[in-house]
Amino acid sequence: MKEVSVLAPASVANVVCGFDCLGFALAAPFDEMNLRLINEKTVRIINQDDHNLPTEPEKNVAGVALSAILDEIGDEIGFEVKITKHIKPGSGLGSSSASAVGAVVAANKLLSERFSRMELAEFALKGEFLASQGRHADNVAPCLYGGFTLVRSVFPLDIVEIEFPKLFVTVIHPQIEIKTSEARKILPAQVPLKSAIHAWANVGALIAALSKGDYGLIARSLEDLIVEPVRKSLIPHFDEVKNASLKANALGGGISGSGPSIFMLSETLETADAVKQAMCEVYENTKIEFNTYVSEINSEGVKILDK
Amino acid sequence: MKEVSVLAPASVANVVCGFDCLGFALAAPFDEMNLRLINEKTVRIINQDDHNLPTEPEKNVAGVALSAILDEIGDEIGFEVKITKHIKPGSGLGSSSASAVGAVVAANKLLSERFSRMELAEFALKGEFLASQGRHADNVAPCLYGGFTLVRSVFPLDIVEIEFPKLFVTVIHPQIEIKTSEARKILPAQVPLKSAIHAWANVGALIAALSKGDYGLIARSLEDLIVEPVRKSLIPHFDEVKNASLKANALGGGISGSGPSIFMLSETLETADAVKQAMCEVYENTKIEFNTYVSEINSEGVKILDK
Repeated sequence: MKEVSVLAPASVANVVCGFDCLGFALAAPFDEMNLRLINEKTVRIINQDDHNLPTEPEKNVAGVALSAILDEIGDEIGFEVKITKHIKPGSGLGSSSASAVGAVVAANKLLSERFSRMELAEFALKGEFLASQGRHADNVAPCLYGGFTLVRSVFPLDIVEIEFPKLFVTVIHPQIEIKTSEARKILPAQVPLKSAIHAWANVGALIAALSKGDYGLIARSLEDLIVEPVRKSLIPHFDEVKNASLKANALGGGISGSGPSIFMLSETLETADAVKQAMCEVYENTKIEFNTYVSEINSEGVKILDK
Repeated sequence: MKEVSVLAPASVANVVCGFDCLGFALAAPFDEMNLRLINEKTVRIINQDDHNLPTEPEKNVAGVALSAILDEIGDEIGFEVKITKHIKPGSGLGSSSASAVGAVVAANKLLSERFSRMELAEFALKGEFLASQGRHADNVAPCLYGGFTLVRSVFPLDIVEIEFPKLFVTVIHPQIEIKTSEARKILPAQVPLKSAIHAWANVGALIAALSKGDYGLIARSLEDLIVEPVRKSLIPHFDEVKNASLKANALGGGISGSGPSIFMLSETLETADAVKQAMCEVYENTKIEFNTYVSEINSEGVKILDK
C-alpha cells in the first residue's frame, strides 16, 4: 500500500470530574488526512484547509509525530501528508490530538502495521507535546481507541478502555480563543484534601455508572468543584449554557478540555437535539459566533478509509 | 418474629487509592448479634465478649443506631441486644460499623423490614458517628451491602455497588492501638493538584479493573501517594509486610481503614495463604502480637441467620 486516508475524530477531555485523565471520542467533527509514502526521509505537509497551520514538520503536530516514526524505523522513506482539518485548533475538542493520531495511524497502515496501538500512542504524544507542552494523553487516547478512555498513568503510559452505554453529546464551540497554557496557569497548585476526596469519589462513581449503564448515577457523578469553578470564568455564559442544558434534560456536562467548547451528555438523540436548541438560544443573544455539534459517542476512534 | 440473630462482617475501608469512599466486606472476622423485641421503649445491651464496651445505649455504637430507629418509629417497644464481637475495636477493620449495621439490620427484621437499605444506612451512620466523630460510610456501606462499595457522597448519601471478580484478602492485625482521630490529624489539609489527579486516575482505573476482572490493572491501580506515605509511619514494619506480600504474589494492598491492620488482595486462595505466611514471618521477628485472617471478599454483607 502506497497511500492511505483516515478520519481522526474530535474528543472531549476531562469529562467534568476526570481532569487530566478521562476522555471520549466524538463522531463529529473529524479531520481528514491522506498519507503517501515517498522515497525521501522527510515529512512533507500539505494543508488543505484555511487554518494556516505551519508546514515545517518540526512546527506541526502531525509532522512531529511522523518524524518520530521515521526516527524509529530508520528506513530511507518519508511521508507526504495532506491535511483537511475540520476540528478548529484551540476549540478544546482535541484538534492537535486528532492531527497526531490520524498521522501515526495512517503511517502505521503504510508500514504494514508494524507498531502496536500503545507504540502509536507514544508517537502521537510526541506530536501532542508540541501543542500542549506537556505529556497529556487524555485526548490522544480516546481519538486512538474510541469510546471512553481513562489514562491511569503517562509514565509509563497506561490507557484503560471504559465500557459505556448509548450516549449522545452536544457541543457548543464559542468562537473565542483560550490558550491551554493560560487555562492551566489559573489552576490551583494545591487543593483541599476534602475536595480531592469528593473528586475521586465522583470519578469512581462515573466509571461504575458508565460500566453499568446507570444514567442517573452518570448525571450525579458529573460534578467538579476543583477545575470548573476556576475555568468557567474564561467562557462567557457558561452557567447559562449549563443550566439551559440541564433544563432540557441533559445528564450533565461541562468544559471540554480547557475550553472554550462546552459539552453535554444526553441519553437520547432527541434530548441531545433539544440541548443544542437550548445552547443556541443562550448564544444567539450574544455577539459571539459559535458552532454546535450533536454526535453519538464514537466507539471506533480514528478510522482508516477503504479505497 | 420476636428474636433474630445476625452476623455482621468486618470490612476494609479506603482500599489504598480510594480514601474515604471505597470499601469491601470480609468473610471473616464477623460479629454475632442477637436482638429481641421488648415492651419498654429502651435499648438494653448485653455484651458477651471481653472488649468491655459501654452498655449505656448513648455510649454504644449499636445502642445509638437502635435508639435512632426507636426515635423514628415512635412505637412503645424497645430492643434487647446481645453482642459477641469478634472484630476487635480499633483494629481498622470496621468494628464499629459492624456493630451499627448488625444492629439496624436485625432490628429491621424484627420490624417486618419496614425500612429500605438506604434508610438503614442512615441509622447505622448515626451509630458510626459515635465512634469516628464524622459522617463516614466507607465501612458501613460494604458491611451492609456486601462486596465492594463506593460512597459517592455522604450528603446526600449515595452508595454505589461495584462489580468485582473472585478476590481473596489477607489481613494482619498487629495488636497496637491507633486512634482514628490521631490518624486523621496527621493527614495534610491540602494536597498538590498533581497528586490528586494521580489519585483519581487510580480510583477510576481500579473501578474499571474490578468491573472487568482485570487483575493486572487492579494491581497497578492499588497505589496511593497521599495517605499511605503519611500513615504508614504509625504501623511498625508496614513496608516490610507490603514488600513481602508483593513478593508472595499479592496483587497489592495497604492500610485497612486507619490501621493498624494491613490488607492484601490476591487472585487465588493459595496466594492469599502464601501472603499470610509472608506477613507472619515479618511479625514473628518482632515482639508485637498479631492476628491474621484469610478470607474471600464477602459479596453478601451482613447476614440474617435462619432459626
